[in-house]
Amino acid sequence: MSADALSLAVTGAGGRMGREVIEAAVDREGVAVAVAVNRTETDPVAGVPVADAADLDDLLASEAPDALIDFTGPDSAVAYAETCADAGVPLVTGTTGFADAQIDDLRAASEAVPVLKASNFARGVAALRRAVREAAAALPGYDVELTETHHNAKRDAPSGTAKSILDDVESVREDLDERVHGREGDAPRGPGEVGVHARRAGDVTGEHEVLLAGNRETLELTHRAGDRGVFAEGALDAADWIAGRDPGWYGFGDVLDAGAE
Amino acid sequence: MSADALSLAVTGAGGRMGREVIEAAVDREGVAVAVAVNRTETDPVAGVPVADAADLDDLLASEAPDALIDFTGPDSAVAYAETCADAGVPLVTGTTGFADAQIDDLRAASEAVPVLKASNFARGVAALRRAVREAAAALPGYDVELTETHHNAKRDAPSGTAKSILDDVESVREDLDERVHGREGDAPRGPGEVGVHARRAGDVTGEHEVLLAGNRETLELTHRAGDRGVFAEGALDAADWIAGRDPGWYGFGDVLDAGAE
Amino acid sequence: MSADALSLAVTGAGGRMGREVIEAAVDREGVAVAVAVNRTETDPVAGVPVADAADLDDLLASEAPDALIDFTGPDSAVAYAETCADAGVPLVTGTTGFADAQIDDLRAASEAVPVLKASNFARGVAALRRAVREAAAALPGYDVELTETHHNAKRDAPSGTAKSILDDVESVREDLDERVHGREGDAPRGPGEVGVHARRAGDVTGEHEVLLAGNRETLELTHRAGDRGVFAEGALDAADWIAGRDPGWYGFGDVLDAGAE
Amino acid sequence: MSADALSLAVTGAGGRMGREVIEAAVDREGVAVAVAVNRTETDPVAGVPVADAADLDDLLASEAPDALIDFTGPDSAVAYAETCADAGVPLVTGTTGFADAQIDDLRAASEAVPVLKASNFARGVAALRRAVREAAAALPGYDVELTETHHNAKRDAPSGTAKSILDDVESVREDLDERVHGREGDAPRGPGEVGVHARRAGDVTGEHEVLLAGNRETLELTHRAGDRGVFAEGALDAADWIAGRDPGWYGFGDVLDAGAE
Repeated sequence: MSADALSLAVTGAGGRMGREVIEAAVDREGVAVAVAVNRTETDPVAGVPVADAADLDDLLASEAPDALIDFTGPDSAVAYAETCADAGVPLVTGTTGFADAQIDDLRAASEAVPVLKASNFARGVAALRRAVREAAAALPGYDVELTETHHNAKRDAPSGTAKSILDDVESVREDLDERVHGREGDAPRGPGEVGVHARRAGDVTGEHEVLLAGNRETLELTHRAGDRGVFAEGALDAADWIAGRDPGWYGFGDVLDAGAE
Repeated sequence: MSADALSLAVTGAGGRMGREVIEAAVDREGVAVAVAVNRTETDPVAGVPVADAADLDDLLASEAPDALIDFTGPDSAVAYAETCADAGVPLVTGTTGFADAQIDDLRAASEAVPVLKASNFARGVAALRRAVREAAAALPGYDVELTETHHNAKRDAPSGTAKSILDDVESVREDLDERVHGREGDAPRGPGEVGVHARRAGDVTGEHEVLLAGNRETLELTHRAGDRGVFAEGALDAADWIAGRDPGWYGFGDVLDAGAE
Repeated sequence: MSADALSLAVTGAGGRMGREVIEAAVDREGVAVAVAVNRTETDPVAGVPVADAADLDDLLASEAPDALIDFTGPDSAVAYAETCADAGVPLVTGTTGFADAQIDDLRAASEAVPVLKASNFARGVAALRRAVREAAAALPGYDVELTETHHNAKRDAPSGTAKSILDDVESVREDLDERVHGREGDAPRGPGEVGVHARRAGDVTGEHEVLLAGNRETLELTHRAGDRGVFAEGALDAADWIAGRDPGWYGFGDVLDAGAE
Repeated sequence: MSADALSLAVTGAGGRMGREVIEAAVDREGVAVAVAVNRTETDPVAGVPVADAADLDDLLASEAPDALIDFTGPDSAVAYAETCADAGVPLVTGTTGFADAQIDDLRAASEAVPVLKASNFARGVAALRRAVREAAAALPGYDVELTETHHNAKRDAPSGTAKSILDDVESVREDLDERVHGREGDAPRGPGEVGVHARRAGDVTGEHEVLLAGNRETLELTHRAGDRGVFAEGALDAADWIAGRDPGWYGFGDVLDAGAE
């Protein structure tokens, strides 16, 4: 492995996304997993041994990885952020469900090290959001309906990504202020409505489609995630981007901007 | 015009679909509109003069058209069906919203003349329904979700065509017995669910999409109507098919079967 | 009709798009067709009498319309542009197929009056192009394939709009430099390729879809024109926008920008 | 493991599809891999030890599996078919590229044991093909265009599955007799044409879409494979179906028919 390789720490190594990240890192040239930890005893993942999360501070000190990737829970993520701040290791976190006070803790850590927080690491979702903002702004007065499709075991509806896209639409279309989740019976469309449709079917990884319609034409913008690996790849891109950067608070859009330079 | 031309009567000539039918008939080679009537005074449509509907019986007697096409309201349609039965003129009706007793009246007329009743005269919708039945039967256990899209002025949801498609699906998939119209919040999918999503946007004529998903794959079957003319063309096809046929009760599927021979 | 109404001149009033424009103008509130001309004798269109194109200069002088909309041929369009320049009437032209020297003539006219030239007046196509540029720039390294669908009587492939979209893609993705029109046999994809697929089927008005794929995800951006009326409406929007503006050379994107303000 | 479990043999255990099959079998309840062989020395796959293919006859004799699943090459597959015939083990093969004489050899084996040969084990593809036949038959005169999308490393175009679908279309639409692979320049559509468009992009597993268009409407039938696991699952379904069946020559459609009973 060359001296230029990106050296990573991964938390939650026994979790679904932690495993995906390690597998993606092992498969990607120029990336090495120097540290993998989990809170419970865990078998090696893709040949990478998994240490006890209680030893994370020692491991960061001895291995000095270029970045840490975290997909765990809010409490763990906050604790890991503090460890990163102490050790001077940049943090990429895809953990969700933080309370406001926990977000404050993460932001405090970002004064010492760069912290990148995102709810979706698919480049294509970030590109979709930009395309949607551009199109919605260019088509004032057009009706907007969002349809998202996920596997039949997903409990919440609509998806977090769908909500982010709806926020985007409403930010450029101030006349839209009512989200309608399904229609039945005598249900005429109101002028400020955005329809939101959550399909649940099979084992679809994730699909988001925005329909804009008016004036005898339609525009459909659709993202499909092939499998969860796409999110792991995006997290690796984020780690590569954040390594060696100044302390601060970043989002996945910053990674995209860099890619587009 | 040749002796072989199809000679038509059209009721509701001042209505939206009546006009479409007359315009389509005028444009189609080998078809002539011999009689056009409306209940209120109406200017000529596509050059065809419109008579008073009160004179329909006399006009059918004098012109002896090969078939009558009716897109009106239930009360009118029943009255016209009786006039057709008396005059020996086959009837094609796309009128909807009949009460059960009115259906009985139509069926009574079908003992004297052929009567074809349909809620959607798009060949493609009939083809979609067949394809959906075939696919749903071939994929037991797959989740099914239906999404339909119509212009933003449509009041009822889901569309009548969507309901027919759902009936089809349930006829071949007995395990599906609950139609869910939209999902929000903590809304896990139940095993017998069929999701039904009504998008309302712009001036979309009509789109119906059936999604079947399972086993890491999806099948999507989608019909799009370009404009209302497609329904008028289908009504002309139905009139052409019904002319000279024996009395009886027919559907648009019979026309398709003939086309596929 | 109020004093504020937009007063229009329309050339090529007997042509396909000229008729669409007149019909759309008659249907739109606050717009009046003051002048309609054609080079050959033509019946009234939607109740608007059609004059001889040879009298256009006199008619512009006497009626002083706010803008002239032209969908004709290159030679006619250049002549009309000069007439507009002399009469001080802003010009919107959707004519295509100009030689370079003719473009120079149009630009010369734009020193005297505002001239807006566009190959596609669908707002949605302009929005699609912006969305595509945004997405293509955000997804470096992703493969791009364009699929366009038009009615089976269209002779040229790919469509002019498809070519414009491909130009857009290549302007933000310099690594893409080879357009491939179809693949068959042993046809591995080269790194700089953009696939271009022209579907011809039925009476589809026009559909353009851009697929970006990589990293286990796809993004599809699709525009569908419901009917040709969408182009007529866009031309009216352009005329409304250009009325009273300073001389200069404009595109349909300028109209969109205004709408998005 | 219960006495009712399905016991499998898998050839080509070191190959891409062989691995997928073993992994899917290990994950599926009620299925056990009793025999896995490869022609070259191979590490265990998903914990299943891989034996030398030269010992297949002995292993079939001692383990007496309920079926053998083969995704290898034509020569190997023919040899394995003979071994299966001798051992009385039903065969499921997804191998492609057989010469006619080799097909004869497989058919000879099917006189001793049941042999199921298929080029695509996705249930959804089989369902798509049925839906396409149904729809194409119901829409005489409509134009048909097929678009398939696969990852950018696929060499051949169009896909084998696309060719099977085209065969299906032509079997119900005798007027269609010319496959056109891409259009460019002055390329008007001929009456007997079927357009075939091969998109190559990113790492798309496989997508097939059939467009039928005419009469101002369109019907689109689209299958998307989420990942290669779908083919492995289908092969397991086929093995489950063929176990204990009479000798004979079967296709994947037979499995579907059973599922639909």
